[in-house]
Parts: sequence; C-alpha cells; structure tokens
Amino acid sequence: MPDTESVDLVTAELHGSLEDPALTSMNFLNEITGRYPEALSFAPGRPVERFFDVESVHRRLRTFTDHLSGELGYSQGEVSRTLCQYGRTKGIVHGLVARSLARDEGIDADPESIVVTVGCQEAMFLVLRALRANPRDVLLSVSPMYVGLTGAARLIDMPVLPVAGGAAGIDLDDLVARIQGARQRGLRPRACYVMPDFANPSGLSMDLATRRALLEVAEREDILLLEDNPYGLFHGGGGKPPTLKALDSARRVVYLGSFAKTVLPGARVGYAVADQRVRDARGTTGLFADQLSKIKSMVTVNTSPIAQAVVGGALLENGYSLDSANGREQEVYRRNLRQVVDGLEARFADCPGVSWNTPAGGFFVSVTVPFTVDDDLLEVSARRFGVLWTPMCHFYSGPGGSNELRLSVSSLSGAEIEEGLDRLAALFVERSRGSVNMRFVHSGDRAP
Amino acid sequence: MPDTESVDLVTAELHGSLEDPALTSMNFLNEITGRYPEALSFAPGRPVERFFDVESVHRRLRTFTDHLSGELGYSQGEVSRTLCQYGRTKGIVHGLVARSLARDEGIDADPESIVVTVGCQEAMFLVLRALRANPRDVLLSVSPMYVGLTGAARLIDMPVLPVAGGAAGIDLDDLVARIQGARQRGLRPRACYVMPDFANPSGLSMDLATRRALLEVAEREDILLLEDNPYGLFHGGGGKPPTLKALDSARRVVYLGSFAKTVLPGARVGYAVADQRVRDARGTTGLFADQLSKIKSMVTVNTSPIAQAVVGGALLENGYSLDSANGREQEVYRRNLRQVVDGLEARFADCPGVSWNTPAGGFFVSVTVPFTVDDDLLEVSARRFGVLWTPMCHFYSGPGGSNELRLSVSSLSGAEIEEGLDRLAALFVERSRGSVNMRFVHSGDRAP
Repeated sequence: MPDTESVDLVTAELHGSLEDPALTSMNFLNEITGRYPEALSFAPGRPVERFFDVESVHRRLRTFTDHLSGELGYSQGEVSRTLCQYGRTKGIVHGLVARSLARDEGIDADPESIVVTVGCQEAMFLVLRALRANPRDVLLSVSPMYVGLTGAARLIDMPVLPVAGGAAGIDLDDLVARIQGARQRGLRPRACYVMPDFANPSGLSMDLATRRALLEVAEREDILLLEDNPYGLFHGGGGKPPTLKALDSARRVVYLGSFAKTVLPGARVGYAVADQRVRDARGTTGLFADQLSKIKSMVTVNTSPIAQAVVGGALLENGYSLDSANGREQEVYRRNLRQVVDGLEARFADCPGVSWNTPAGGFFVSVTVPFTVDDDLLEVSARRFGVLWTPMCHFYSGPGGSNELRLSVSSLSGAEIEEGLDRLAALFVERSRGSVNMRFVHSGDRAP
Repeated sequence: MPDTESVDLVTAELHGSLEDPALTSMNFLNEITGRYPEALSFAPGRPVERFFDVESVHRRLRTFTDHLSGELGYSQGEVSRTLCQYGRTKGIVHGLVARSLARDEGIDADPESIVVTVGCQEAMFLVLRALRANPRDVLLSVSPMYVGLTGAARLIDMPVLPVAGGAAGIDLDDLVARIQGARQRGLRPRACYVMPDFANPSGLSMDLATRRALLEVAEREDILLLEDNPYGLFHGGGGKPPTLKALDSARRVVYLGSFAKTVLPGARVGYAVADQRVRDARGTTGLFADQLSKIKSMVTVNTSPIAQAVVGGALLENGYSLDSANGREQEVYRRNLRQVVDGLEARFADCPGVSWNTPAGGFFVSVTVPFTVDDDLLEVSARRFGVLWTPMCHFYSGPGGSNELRLSVSSLSGAEIEEGLDRLAALFVERSRGSVNMRFVHSGDRAP
C-alpha cells in the first residue's frame, strides 16, 4: 500500500516501542516462520505438541469444577458463577499454585502473595509498571536477554541495563559495577531480571554458590530480583539447585511463574509471587501482590477463570506436582537436548570457530560460528536450506551476538533434529566458503 | 501490619497510578462489596448470572472445535494445536467476530483489522499505549467517565481531559473548545473516548444527529474516536441508532468490543477494530490493528485460544448474532430498568431535589439527591441499610458528582429491586433529616 494520501497515522507519532527492535524483531521472527512453514524450525521455544489433546482440556475443567462442588462444597450456582462471572483480580487458583510451589520448588508462598496473570508476560509487565515510578528508575538484566522482558520494559519506557552473563549465568562483579555506575549517573536501579535455570536464550544456569551470592548482592545493594523460571522443571536429569525464591529469606525476590511449558500455552496462565511488604500513603502495610493486582485491574481486569480452571484441573490431577505431570515431556526435552549437542559434536567438532554450550537442561543451545549471523542469513537459511533458528543479536539491546545463534530443541522429532542439523551444516559450509572443514555433512544446498 | 521496620517498599516510590483515585476507588468498591456480602447491590455492572451454566462452556468449546474439524477441515492435531499451543497474536476468532459485527451492528470490518484482546480493558490499554507517544499526547473523554478508561490512561501517564456530556451524551461545543484549548497549551489531543449507547455511568445515549456531528468534529479536528460499546445490544426495545463505527466512512473510529455482557465475563475476551492505515519508518503501510498487535505481544502475548473458543462457539451457535442469543438477558435488563425507574417514581416523585434519568436501555440509572454522596455515605448505606450502589464522584477525574449516585439494574431480581429501593429510600429519608418528604417508604433503618 504505497498510497500515502490515504494514510491515517504514522508510527513516528505513535509510541516509540512500535519501532523498537524488541517489538519489531518478534514480529520479524513470526513473519519469517509464517513465510516458510515447511522449514524445519529450531526457532520457537514452544513446548512439544504431540501430547496436546482437546479432551484433556475438558477433563481438567471438570476436575476443577468437581473440586469446587466436591471438596469445597460449592452449589451449582456458585460453580457457574466462579467460572463465568467477573472474579477475583488476583485469581482463583492461587491456593493450588501455592501448593504446587511447595511441592515442586520448595517455595513457601502465602496464597495471598500470588497474582495469577495472563501468562508470565503480564506478570512481568505488572512488576515493571509498578517499579517504574519516574524517569530515573531502571532495570538490570543479564545479557543476552529474553525479548519479552525488553519489550515489556519498552512499553513503559523503562531502560534495561545489560549485565554480563559469563559462564556462571551472571557476572556479579559486573552487576555491582552496573548498579553503582547507574547510581552515579543519577539513576535508580530497581531490580535485576534473571532466569537462573536454563536461561532463554543462553541455556546457562547458575550454581548454588552464585545464587546465594546474588541474593547477598541484592540485599546489600537494595534491589529486587525478578526470577523468571519457565524451564526449571526441565532439568536434564541431574536435578538442579533451589530457585532463588526458595532461598529468599529477605523478600528480595519476585518470582515469575509460567504454566505455558508445564501445562499448556493455550491457557495463557502465569503468576507472580510478590510477598514484599508495601506501605501506602495512608500508612497501611500490605503485600506487593495487592499493588500488582491494582495495576492488573486496569490491564486485563482478571485472568479468565475458565483458563485458570484448566490449569487448576491439571494441578489437582497431579497432586499439585507439575514435575510428576511432565514425565513424558521431560524425557522428550532431555533426549532432544542430548541429540542436538551430540549432533553438533558429530558435525562440527573439528571446525575452527564453531562452538556451542552444553546446557544441563531446558530448551536452548547457543552456537558460535566464524561468520556473521543476522536476519539476512536467517532468510537465506530458511529459503535455500529449509532450516530456521534465531539470530542471537535479537537478544542484545546493544551490539552483541553477531556470531551466535540460538537453537531451540523443544519442538522437533529425533529425525527432524538430524535433518535440521544437516541443513544447518550445509549452510555453515557455504557461509564459511570452505574455510571451515565440516566433518560430517550429509548434503549441500537443498530445498526444504 | 503497623510494623514499619519490616516494610520492603513504599507506594511513594512505585508508579503514581497506585495512589491514583481511579485505581484506589475500584479497590474500595470491591472491598466494600466483599465486606457486606449480604447487602442488596445496585453497584456492579455485572451481567445476570442465572443463565450461566458450566455445561454451556463445554458445549461452546465443542461447537468451536467441531467447526475447525468440520467446516475448516482441520486434522485432530491441528485442532489441538489451535487450542493448546501459542497462537496468532491478533487472535483466532477474528473472522467470526467480523461476521457478528456485520450481522448485529452493520459494521463492515476486515477481519485483519480486528485484534482479539483479554477483555475490552486490554483493547483500551493497547490503543492508549499506541497513541501516547510523548508527554504532549492527551486523551479526551465525556465526563463522568468509565473508571477503567481513567485507570488505563493513568498506567501510561496519559492525561484525560473531561468533556461535558449534557443531555445529548456529549456536548460538541465543549469538545471543540477542549481540543482547541489543549492545543493552545501545547498539548496534542489524540482521541476522544465515548460510549454512545447507554453509557457507563450516566446511562445516556447519543441520537443519530449527534453521532453524525461527532464524526464531523473528529474529522475536522483530526482526532480519533474510541467507541466503547458493551451495552449496545441491551436497548430497551425501541432499537437504537447505528454505532459510530457503522457510520464511519473516514476511518476515524477505533471500535472497542466486549463479550462480557453478551457471552460471558469469564472468557475475558474483547477486541478492537482498528482499520486505520499506519505508515511505519520504512514507508510500509499497514493496519493500526497490527501496531496494537505488537504491543499486545508484550502485554499478554495472545488471548487464550480456549477462552476465544468459548466465545467462538457462542457465535457459531447463534448464526453470528449475539442480539438473537441474548433474548432472555435483554428481557431481564429491560424489565429491571423499567422497574427501577418506576420504583424511583413511586418513592421519590414528590421529593424536592431527588431526580433521576430514564435511559432507553443498558444497565445504569443516574440519581441526583439533595445531600452529599460519598464513600462515607456508601459505608453507612451498606452497614445500616444493607444496600450498595456507586457514588458518582468515582467517575469524575476532578470535582463533580457529589450529589449523584449510580444504580446498576443488571444483577438483581424483581423482589430484590423493590427491597433495595426501599432500603435506599430509608437512607434518603434519614440523610435528608426530614427535609425530604418521601412519598413511599416501607420502613426505616433496618439491618440487611
């Protein structure tokens, strides 16, 4: 539509986020996935689909409504009202979520400190909105960082200062330096966003000592930690250290939870555990959760109780343990992760300049290559090689990641992984123009 | 919790919205309703509950999935993926919504111009976020105004300039004066929010001539109109003029739709029709809906497809007409509205200083009284008289409404309305200290 006469608005006069890399990159990645539907995709961090089942949606709904009428003694009218009417802003499955946190994560959360949200994304948005009181307030985040975090911050014009990750998942010296540097510039760092378990996009995890030290830094520097934990249950079999929230004795951690990977994305149900005590203008002290709830009432009013019921049913059916509910999924992700890492080893072990990390779990592997990785290369990869992945540069707010790509292992079958890695190898060979000697390449240029 | 030593945060250092009247008043109204559960309530604008039915949730879900597998030929895997996986940011029921708009409202909407949202509240938030590009950007709204609008604007620090309503639903001279006055002060009015049909809280509607004139003002003054229409289908039997969007030949109107009253609140599904053409920084022209979608991807990612399916099923079951689907509800609201207005007449016709309007439909009646109406009076009314309503002052951003209250007619039975009006009359008698001579009062002070 090049006809400028009939234009009603221009983005230059709309909110700046609409031209921000965080929002446009998400759009570009969706768009290219849509244009090459036949390509094998290591791009999206989506859960495996083969266990999805519409009947289980009905069953979980019934499990939840049976729970209301059975254990809780609700009348039929009360059950209908709970599911169909406007409801509690902080949600209706908070008690079940608290039990599941105790069971799976050793987190002792007061149900009143839980705000059930429209996915973890809304939880993130609510927390940032509350913390950004004036133009001095800034956020810190380990870089490379989740694009949903950058985007939510951008919506409220909150700068995100990058903190080095390093091999430990966070470089604590750099964190302290960034906080102090920001303060010297008159800024007020409010919180640091972290994904201590199998981070998106790096795949890195923090060990127990790092977690404890991070909590100490937060206490000493008087900032909050926003702990996002979508992948914690998908450890590679060796277990994992406790979450920050389980270790948090000083209410420094706002825990951001998601059911997208452990129940289903289609419910769009997540939550925040926000047990911080907040004093208001009248001198009354309450929970941070109640402040988030006030904001939520002006964003989405409340989270669909029907969607909450589907999640609640899943929790009830599994004795509140999503760990035990996800045995099949854990096995798939574990096998896929091993296969991708082994497959990279088989294909690229002797290639100078090609390296990758070996995460202990989660969905993501980070690959470094001796050539530029950008959207143009992704376009070539999709069109000519039939394989999709994510340029790591999308996860940096400034420069960075220009030789890296993220592979997601979660949604391909074993055969697709092999074929996808072959296609990737063919791309690498071509792009390296012979300078890289690939040990194992099934074939060259091929259409998907 | 008066112990200040253990406070972690103070609202003075959180976002200003958290101490804003819009957000705190919503909280106060919820809180008082919770404290007096036995009181008869003219307060909430909730739909009637007696037709709610959990089985209809299951049935509508099946109707929708049968539609996918039947008419659209989806495989079982595709149906599961549609409901359970991450999905299209703009939603999956946009085609059905477009058909329903054509059928019920005479609105010809391109499905691609529709963004399905988490209730109308999210639609409102997305539009305001997009339009607030810098500190000069302001919104206009007819006053008294919906508190959800004020709250959403407050979250993004967007000032809302009040426009007089008058008997016509909007005073167009005042609108023009406000726009021009704002411009003289260096501000940029972006849009005016209106509820042309049975507005919340006033109950007023605009006639056809006013609608046409409003569209002309918008065109001449180069602002958008945000048309919110949750109650349009609940006309009192006499029909109503077309919506602004149906009359909008110049893409001046962003239409905000809700299924909360016409299907069920518990789905939390609403939408925006945003067909404005937007040129971006690269010179590409697209739809405003796609800009809203980018923001939505950072607020809630997408609207639960399960919740959308419940609404989609309702549309499919009723030949896309929510008008015909709501015959029972229309009858209830019509009868209740008549009963409340007749009941006010029977009790207060001869009381000097007591007056009310007679809306042609919708949920709300506005009552003016010769004494101060505030939160303290509501507290007295709830505790000693067992009746709840809403002080109109909550709907004014500045002074105003101090002698008015809003009665919602939607959720009480006939007997409850009579009893509730009696209790209201008893309150009025006491508060007027005999200066008001009530014609018809069953009893005085009574406990609920």
